[in-house]
Amino acid sequence: MKKRLFTPGPTPVPENVMLSMAAPIIHHRNPEFMEILTRVHEDLQYLFRTTQPVVVMTCSGTGGMESAISSLFGTGDKVVTVNAGKFGERWGELVRTFTGGCVEVMVPWGEAIRPERLVEVLREHPDARGVCITHSETSTGTAADIQALCAAIHEASDALILVDGITAIGAHEFHFDEWGADICITGSQKGLMMPPGLALIAVSERAQDIIEGRGDHPQFYLSLKKALESHAGNDTPFTPAVTLIIGLAEALGMLRDEGIENVWKRHERLAAACRQGCEALGMKLFSSSPSFAVTPVWLPEGVDWKQFNKTLKADNGITVAAGQDEFAGRIFRISHLGYYDELDMLAVIGGLEFTLKSMGVPFEPGAGVAAVQRAFLSD
Amino acid sequence: MKKRLFTPGPTPVPENVMLSMAAPIIHHRNPEFMEILTRVHEDLQYLFRTTQPVVVMTCSGTGGMESAISSLFGTGDKVVTVNAGKFGERWGELVRTFTGGCVEVMVPWGEAIRPERLVEVLREHPDARGVCITHSETSTGTAADIQALCAAIHEASDALILVDGITAIGAHEFHFDEWGADICITGSQKGLMMPPGLALIAVSERAQDIIEGRGDHPQFYLSLKKALESHAGNDTPFTPAVTLIIGLAEALGMLRDEGIENVWKRHERLAAACRQGCEALGMKLFSSSPSFAVTPVWLPEGVDWKQFNKTLKADNGITVAAGQDEFAGRIFRISHLGYYDELDMLAVIGGLEFTLKSMGVPFEPGAGVAAVQRAFLSD
Repeated sequence: MKKRLFTPGPTPVPENVMLSMAAPIIHHRNPEFMEILTRVHEDLQYLFRTTQPVVVMTCSGTGGMESAISSLFGTGDKVVTVNAGKFGERWGELVRTFTGGCVEVMVPWGEAIRPERLVEVLREHPDARGVCITHSETSTGTAADIQALCAAIHEASDALILVDGITAIGAHEFHFDEWGADICITGSQKGLMMPPGLALIAVSERAQDIIEGRGDHPQFYLSLKKALESHAGNDTPFTPAVTLIIGLAEALGMLRDEGIENVWKRHERLAAACRQGCEALGMKLFSSSPSFAVTPVWLPEGVDWKQFNKTLKADNGITVAAGQDEFAGRIFRISHLGYYDELDMLAVIGGLEFTLKSMGVPFEPGAGVAAVQRAFLSD
Repeated sequence: MKKRLFTPGPTPVPENVMLSMAAPIIHHRNPEFMEILTRVHEDLQYLFRTTQPVVVMTCSGTGGMESAISSLFGTGDKVVTVNAGKFGERWGELVRTFTGGCVEVMVPWGEAIRPERLVEVLREHPDARGVCITHSETSTGTAADIQALCAAIHEASDALILVDGITAIGAHEFHFDEWGADICITGSQKGLMMPPGLALIAVSERAQDIIEGRGDHPQFYLSLKKALESHAGNDTPFTPAVTLIIGLAEALGMLRDEGIENVWKRHERLAAACRQGCEALGMKLFSSSPSFAVTPVWLPEGVDWKQFNKTLKADNGITVAAGQDEFAGRIFRISHLGYYDELDMLAVIGGLEFTLKSMGVPFEPGAGVAAVQRAFLSD
């Protein structure tokens, strides 16, 4: 059976990217590889909209988040984190681990933090050295207004702004320099259309100065200082995942060819069509501020998640993501992050129709895919 | 021009391994992937000769070394490291970074540490909590007698034994359980015939108990505790490099099919033939205890390294490794670690003959390749 992956990481990898990684291996100190890495560095700046360095580390997105926290902050430093889902929660775990000074702002799942709320917290904690926010919270399929949040934080405080852009980069409009972020992280297996294994970290001038001057935690492999020093010579401090970087060069070339504004618009369009398709089948949307990367949907009343997931996967070849924590078994998430187009949305909504039908859930046959088409055609 | 890589990491990747990584991506929480990871875990136990867990981390070998040091030791812990080259030096850097209590034993480059020397040091430092040694020191192409070292350490001390097996695993006989090592690390891009991006870490029962009980350094992504907990369920704590693990399964299957004893013997045989080929061309060997992974050779008198390397690479398609630090420009290193066979040794020695000839170095044409053949045929 033909298989289709609609999970928010790993996301599908284009065939040409896969094959680029199957070429004979080259050495990472070879001029040929250094040239590829130089191009990757440039294309990452294009993607993050920055003139500042974006370093490549061989680790997962969480490794990238740790690298930022442990390179910027020391024991006792107060850092505000926003927890509106699993990945905002991770910011908190990291800050607690590396500074012990976490001020965690809780936001209900499915909602985005309002800038005014964050400003209040920063006024209460004028000594906060950093604020950690999540652009697109993968666990809840919810996007925050990062532009407004950055502006509000700058207005209220000198705290550094750390953005988890893991499922946002390539899906949501983002301007690292213009919006004044200090750190933004993504992972290769998200909007970059690559297998997992690389974290990409943009670092502002202000953050670079702090990293340069500090030396508190023991740090080595995940040191942003070492990574930035090597980056200046278009190199990496340790043997990098050579094949993944070669694939990344290919994938970034595709994004550049499409044009970053078009990539953002494509994600916005696919997300809107996906939501309309689900609603036309009588399903309810979970998020009040939906992400363009992943659409979270309430399971229809009386539908068992395991049975639903099994039917979707075994009979229709479609893999979606489950709900997490208290929403496990209650919501599911459809990803359209990365290598997806309009016709893929027809496939996933079509597969949902087959699944709902075989589970006896009432809906008007064809209503989902027709709604998807209408969304595109009235665009 | 046909290109041949003779560097000790990355090493050549078999075509079937490369292509296995080009298959459509799957999700890491998918039963299909969990099954692959389970097989990888089993095959790594076979490779390391252990019944203990061998965890897979998405990072370089250095990340694996850091994981061991920072997971086992705390601030102030005294740890003995043996520095007989660049990678022994790295053990020292890591211990200084994470405990501050490094006792570094210096050994001249090209020599291996004698067990008696290590015993002396341990007698002077009865409070040492660990000893970090290097099986095959890549920078000097020198192998230590790890079996004898482990026995001597156990006799003299209760210190934990940490083995850098990065260029040794798959090239040199090694028995993790029988020899009583507590940690052994390798990287994917070495004897495992894979691209870089994964560290593999075997952990003894004694080390697991210590890791379980401690909580000193802030640690997250490289935590062996988290990795071991996930390993127990054939899982990983963070999104792993899915495609690299799929390739690793393929590569480990090849090693298992060949049989680990045969893999070791093949490396010993190739190393011996490589040495004899070089000597037959009038070149002098660098190491007094040569590794089976990489053969270090003095550049002939009057030969300029840059010119030599350029001729080897541009005219003959062969990439070897340079000397490092004080031996930069004075030695070169030929790797035969991983996916190499007898006929590859003819190619590299043949390419050396072409290069020496074009640089006007006197030698008897064909003497090198004939010596290689004699080594194999008299085996």
